[in-house]
Amino acid sequence: MSDLYNHGTGNVLVERHDDGVLLITINRPSRYNSLTLPMFEEMNRIWADVERDDDTRVVVITGAGKAFCTGMDVAQPDPTPEQALAMLETERKRVTTVLRIEKPIISAINGPAVGYGLSTALLADISIAADDAVLIEGHTKVGVTAGDHAALIWPLLVGMAKTKYYVLTSEKLTGAEAERIGLVSLSLPREQVLPRALEVASQLARGSQQALRFTKRALNTWLTNAVPQHELSAALEILDFAGADYAEARQAFREKRPVDFPSARPAGAPAN
Amino acid sequence: MSDLYNHGTGNVLVERHDDGVLLITINRPSRYNSLTLPMFEEMNRIWADVERDDDTRVVVITGAGKAFCTGMDVAQPDPTPEQALAMLETERKRVTTVLRIEKPIISAINGPAVGYGLSTALLADISIAADDAVLIEGHTKVGVTAGDHAALIWPLLVGMAKTKYYVLTSEKLTGAEAERIGLVSLSLPREQVLPRALEVASQLARGSQQALRFTKRALNTWLTNAVPQHELSAALEILDFAGADYAEARQAFREKRPVDFPSARPAGAPAN
Amino acid sequence: MSDLYNHGTGNVLVERHDDGVLLITINRPSRYNSLTLPMFEEMNRIWADVERDDDTRVVVITGAGKAFCTGMDVAQPDPTPEQALAMLETERKRVTTVLRIEKPIISAINGPAVGYGLSTALLADISIAADDAVLIEGHTKVGVTAGDHAALIWPLLVGMAKTKYYVLTSEKLTGAEAERIGLVSLSLPREQVLPRALEVASQLARGSQQALRFTKRALNTWLTNAVPQHELSAALEILDFAGADYAEARQAFREKRPVDFPSARPAGAPAN
Amino acid sequence: MSDLYNHGTGNVLVERHDDGVLLITINRPSRYNSLTLPMFEEMNRIWADVERDDDTRVVVITGAGKAFCTGMDVAQPDPTPEQALAMLETERKRVTTVLRIEKPIISAINGPAVGYGLSTALLADISIAADDAVLIEGHTKVGVTAGDHAALIWPLLVGMAKTKYYVLTSEKLTGAEAERIGLVSLSLPREQVLPRALEVASQLARGSQQALRFTKRALNTWLTNAVPQHELSAALEILDFAGADYAEARQAFREKRPVDFPSARPAGAPAN
Amino acid sequence: MSDLYNHGTGNVLVERHDDGVLLITINRPSRYNSLTLPMFEEMNRIWADVERDDDTRVVVITGAGKAFCTGMDVAQPDPTPEQALAMLETERKRVTTVLRIEKPIISAINGPAVGYGLSTALLADISIAADDAVLIEGHTKVGVTAGDHAALIWPLLVGMAKTKYYVLTSEKLTGAEAERIGLVSLSLPREQVLPRALEVASQLARGSQQALRFTKRALNTWLTNAVPQHELSAALEILDFAGADYAEARQAFREKRPVDFPSARPAGAPAN
Amino acid sequence: MSDLYNHGTGNVLVERHDDGVLLITINRPSRYNSLTLPMFEEMNRIWADVERDDDTRVVVITGAGKAFCTGMDVAQPDPTPEQALAMLETERKRVTTVLRIEKPIISAINGPAVGYGLSTALLADISIAADDAVLIEGHTKVGVTAGDHAALIWPLLVGMAKTKYYVLTSEKLTGAEAERIGLVSLSLPREQVLPRALEVASQLARGSQQALRFTKRALNTWLTNAVPQHELSAALEILDFAGADYAEARQAFREKRPVDFPSARPAGAPAN
Repeated sequence: MSDLYNHGTGNVLVERHDDGVLLITINRPSRYNSLTLPMFEEMNRIWADVERDDDTRVVVITGAGKAFCTGMDVAQPDPTPEQALAMLETERKRVTTVLRIEKPIISAINGPAVGYGLSTALLADISIAADDAVLIEGHTKVGVTAGDHAALIWPLLVGMAKTKYYVLTSEKLTGAEAERIGLVSLSLPREQVLPRALEVASQLARGSQQALRFTKRALNTWLTNAVPQHELSAALEILDFAGADYAEARQAFREKRPVDFPSARPAGAPAN
Repeated sequence: MSDLYNHGTGNVLVERHDDGVLLITINRPSRYNSLTLPMFEEMNRIWADVERDDDTRVVVITGAGKAFCTGMDVAQPDPTPEQALAMLETERKRVTTVLRIEKPIISAINGPAVGYGLSTALLADISIAADDAVLIEGHTKVGVTAGDHAALIWPLLVGMAKTKYYVLTSEKLTGAEAERIGLVSLSLPREQVLPRALEVASQLARGSQQALRFTKRALNTWLTNAVPQHELSAALEILDFAGADYAEARQAFREKRPVDFPSARPAGAPAN
Repeated sequence: MSDLYNHGTGNVLVERHDDGVLLITINRPSRYNSLTLPMFEEMNRIWADVERDDDTRVVVITGAGKAFCTGMDVAQPDPTPEQALAMLETERKRVTTVLRIEKPIISAINGPAVGYGLSTALLADISIAADDAVLIEGHTKVGVTAGDHAALIWPLLVGMAKTKYYVLTSEKLTGAEAERIGLVSLSLPREQVLPRALEVASQLARGSQQALRFTKRALNTWLTNAVPQHELSAALEILDFAGADYAEARQAFREKRPVDFPSARPAGAPAN
Repeated sequence: MSDLYNHGTGNVLVERHDDGVLLITINRPSRYNSLTLPMFEEMNRIWADVERDDDTRVVVITGAGKAFCTGMDVAQPDPTPEQALAMLETERKRVTTVLRIEKPIISAINGPAVGYGLSTALLADISIAADDAVLIEGHTKVGVTAGDHAALIWPLLVGMAKTKYYVLTSEKLTGAEAERIGLVSLSLPREQVLPRALEVASQLARGSQQALRFTKRALNTWLTNAVPQHELSAALEILDFAGADYAEARQAFREKRPVDFPSARPAGAPAN
Repeated sequence: MSDLYNHGTGNVLVERHDDGVLLITINRPSRYNSLTLPMFEEMNRIWADVERDDDTRVVVITGAGKAFCTGMDVAQPDPTPEQALAMLETERKRVTTVLRIEKPIISAINGPAVGYGLSTALLADISIAADDAVLIEGHTKVGVTAGDHAALIWPLLVGMAKTKYYVLTSEKLTGAEAERIGLVSLSLPREQVLPRALEVASQLARGSQQALRFTKRALNTWLTNAVPQHELSAALEILDFAGADYAEARQAFREKRPVDFPSARPAGAPAN
Repeated sequence: MSDLYNHGTGNVLVERHDDGVLLITINRPSRYNSLTLPMFEEMNRIWADVERDDDTRVVVITGAGKAFCTGMDVAQPDPTPEQALAMLETERKRVTTVLRIEKPIISAINGPAVGYGLSTALLADISIAADDAVLIEGHTKVGVTAGDHAALIWPLLVGMAKTKYYVLTSEKLTGAEAERIGLVSLSLPREQVLPRALEVASQLARGSQQALRFTKRALNTWLTNAVPQHELSAALEILDFAGADYAEARQAFREKRPVDFPSARPAGAPAN
């Protein structure tokens, strides 16, 4: 299977360890590991490879440098409506593929995880965050529905009161706070995050492979039952991508000024 | 829409803020904001108005004086069976209406929240409690099933171990403890509760209205999936209202003596 | 009903209190209250008796001596495949029976709770653990799927991030930590555990029996909705019992050496 | 297990066949196999026996004489509210017990099946009806909610359009029509019904017992997922038993005159 | 309640019968009872009135002249994207409102029912179709997702094989065929449809109002459980309204020529 | 994408039509299109290709010669336990993959469809059967749980009464009867089956691709919600593969004699 994992732009590193652990590193540290459009496709191909890679037992995913992953790079040109639809369909496939992988996946959240980055972090089976890592759901801040993982898994992580607070406000929280409310499995001092993730991975790689695979299978049915909720949020996010709020948000970010959402302007406020 | 919100007894105040925030204040402080029978209907009409009020983007609900809301006033005359059935059907409609509202609702739990009061507090999307506010589920203490929100949302807030403990025992907990276990979104010193609620409301009112509405819509499907559970608890509560336990509880409360539930008396204990 | 609860080996004590509380004590302290094969059947008969015992209103279950219950005694001879299938079908019936009991059940987790022991502890409605009690899910450590309660109830107790971490790794946690994440209802200093459990039981026994039974009924529908997940995990566990990993794990435990799972050996690692 | 099935009034016959088939015959032909209050309890005990009877592989249930079972005998004295509650709780346990039985159950619907009788007929795994047997849901005709099986299983049998039509109107349908819409498995000329049921039973008794048990287990999870709906309908039916409509319906039946429901009288029509 | 039902354009007639039956007639026979944009809003207001109308017990809805209702009038000017979004949000509220109504609703499908018309027909509790009435789902034929009722209720009416066939192909079927597969409750010769609907309505209006309301409540939980599926289909339909396929379909209909969907042209076929 | 679909043994033919229709033909007519072990893997690869094939819009699958597909070839050597587990895991992946494909799939059931063959036929979105084609679920006849599609989709096709009858008994039914009960979309004279399938496929290939894909997406959430049931049945089938009943069944088939299931022998009948 020597052809696996060679898709790339160099922005995602994949490394095999002797014990059956595969380490994926999002590697664009100069831009806080934000994603260019081609990287979305590349990540999907990597997850598809993970699914069929018989030599890998456990996956660890982390970020190079100080960040874990800060989502789509806002410096990218605005997607056309067709590109937006295609990108979000790609996103939808990512979630489906990750849910289907039977190998345990561990995220080592070494630093900021935002949007797509947070989705990647929280869809892992086990998530280990730096105490001071900053986590931000972020979708509503750019004028779109939280459609890549929040409706699928947040209520099963932290309950509705915390879910709605953080997802509606996009307020940031630290890794330590995320652990306190159940959003991640563990939080640790930053320098221990990756070592601990690799240690847990190594332990699982030495465990009973069938028992682990079957236990994950049984637990993941809680997530397949939430597929309609997830599909709904994904469809609503696509809808928003064509809207004026998203366009204004991107423009404002590039101009480094506050967003002035058209839908929140006194005159233009749409009826509910 | 000048006719909205004018239903009343003066026991519920409704105030429009410039930024699209609507502040509802339960206003019967001399009785700790407990409800008379007409107030149940009035609250329902207010929620129905909120649903169709195009000038409101975010709702904040709080209590006047020291309490948030302490449920039905025990000093009310006992309802006849017909009144009880009607009141509980009204209650059931309240929950349905609140679930349907697409605007974010924030509860500012400034003091005690009991029974109906707790239901109102916890069915808000975002709930902000005073650290020292006392929260009590309370239904079982008066001999009836917890039928107004607990079976609908507690398992999605704090999980089954905490849910069953607090709902079966009706033990009180503070706002700070409620936040720790995930029952409310935030807890704060009492004097900061309403200001923070208004600040969050104002922030959401300036956010992307479509993104917020759609995100809430996707998340609320977790609650519509629990409608059968809720309807069941509501039906069982109605059943209990006609029973001897409820009558004794109300009598005991009026006489300020311990309740001596008929169903728990040695001789009269019914077979399970 | 004088014939109830007389099934036994002396390894399970059942004691009636005056107030309608039934105290069940797993009583094999010399082996940390681990279970012999006959004890599985005996426990099932006891739960079936609890269901039809009209004189009991609330059940408390605890362990004799220092442990709560540490699961199947590894010193037992290996079950044949037929015995394993029979034992696991027995286990499956236990869960079904416990879910069906309408009386509140309280576990007083006075010490270690492992595997079957943890299942018994967490399927109680209210669970009160010693701060320093050690809790271990444990199934994956012996090479089998977590098939007796984890897929049924952990996601409804602590969310998916904590569930997968503890269930996949079988890492131990203390009662205090279990309370912090929502796995149990309360944690207390060890010596207060049983007294508090009995006190809560006594309080519930004096409460409105119909209101409590109906409230539990409404809340338990959250668990019946998870029956497919539970049945799946149970079936997968049976599958594993016939495998080489389980045989090796039992052998290693008896020889007090590390387990060397066949499925995790480099050469023999099966394709995923 | 010689003590099984000896509970009785003589109104239910239980007969063992050599091949592991158990034939249950509701035997009160002079009253069209309608049930007295003690028979409800007796039937529950019989189903509980079926569950633990290791000598039985398949169950066939039918009626003596011309009817299958026509529900509660209206000639019984009116139950007190306590008796009504107890009877309906008994009913609820019957459904739970029947759902739990792992042996295939076949109903041979030789003649009229009404109310409880129809519930018994349709909760069987395989239902074989006489072409001209008359089936009536019947609950709404006596002023109570259809709370014993309709909300649990009709939508999974015939879909919502047929379900609501027959359950709301209580219109009768024949066995042949029931087969056409999927309400029963087969319909046949009356004289072939029991022979065919016994033949299918005998065939299943010679089949792979584990494969049959497991297949039923997997399929029955569709029903456990509907437990909240069933519990809701059962609770609502109990509510109705205390109402004026039910009292009038029973009185009218005894007086053999049309029912004049209080709730449908012009003056007394309650607000919705 | 004299102010109810007076919203109108004259295109919807509402008539009270003495027995508590309300007859709604879609009344634009010259255009086969197709809807103008204002009629969507009007119908929603009528359903909202039905919900709060205490004088109505049962609703019958039919069409004037030869058609039941043939959906949105294609002769209307194309909606702008904002109008399309608003119209579909209106549609979504219609479904929510109809599901919430506790009174039985009966559709008398006297002739063609297409799109919105079919949605109205099939969301009734009881649906009675003319044997020769033509039913067409229709959404895919105009290039949009079937987002107004099909994903909510077809699988609960006719199963997946029939659902996908008719919904994907938009092939027409007759009332008689619809009855055969379970899509409607009954089919009859055309001239008997409305009389029979009124007769069933009148019968229900004389029945036990509480028993009927509660039975409908219990059965409707099957539909609330499908709300996520419905919301998903509605969101996807909105997405399609902005697309080139919908624009081409409307243009082709106006020009009375075959549709040539851009997405199905050889060169322009989008990647899946 | 010239490398797609070239996996093979020659036992599965794949043919591209000009209009974007892909025709898959199971091609082992001398053995009634039964499958050898390598064909299971090959079919999975073909479905995986279908998922990523941008040039295909609609898939038609049929059988060469007189049969559609009659399941695993009994003339194959008995699988070892490891092979059986691997084969069933392969089967499980097939179902997952087919559910994920967004293109419409049409089965042209030209003749007998048994076991795997029936699963393939019924998991298609649209299924068109020859009036006289013989359909047999078949699993219980060989002593294993119906674990490849029945628990997933039969209750959503024909309801529980028909499901349990045909799945427990493995009785055959014709295509015409299958259509009557809703198991397939259409039935036709044999010679019209493939032409009609291709005609429907061609029509869909000219339809709005996005509308069709989204409509299927919304409808398929009904199936993802049933994943736990499916996984359960699959796990139980694996369990049975290691049992004596399956071994006896295979032996009996090879010897062309009746099966004498060990589990059904008087002495050896296991306790339930």
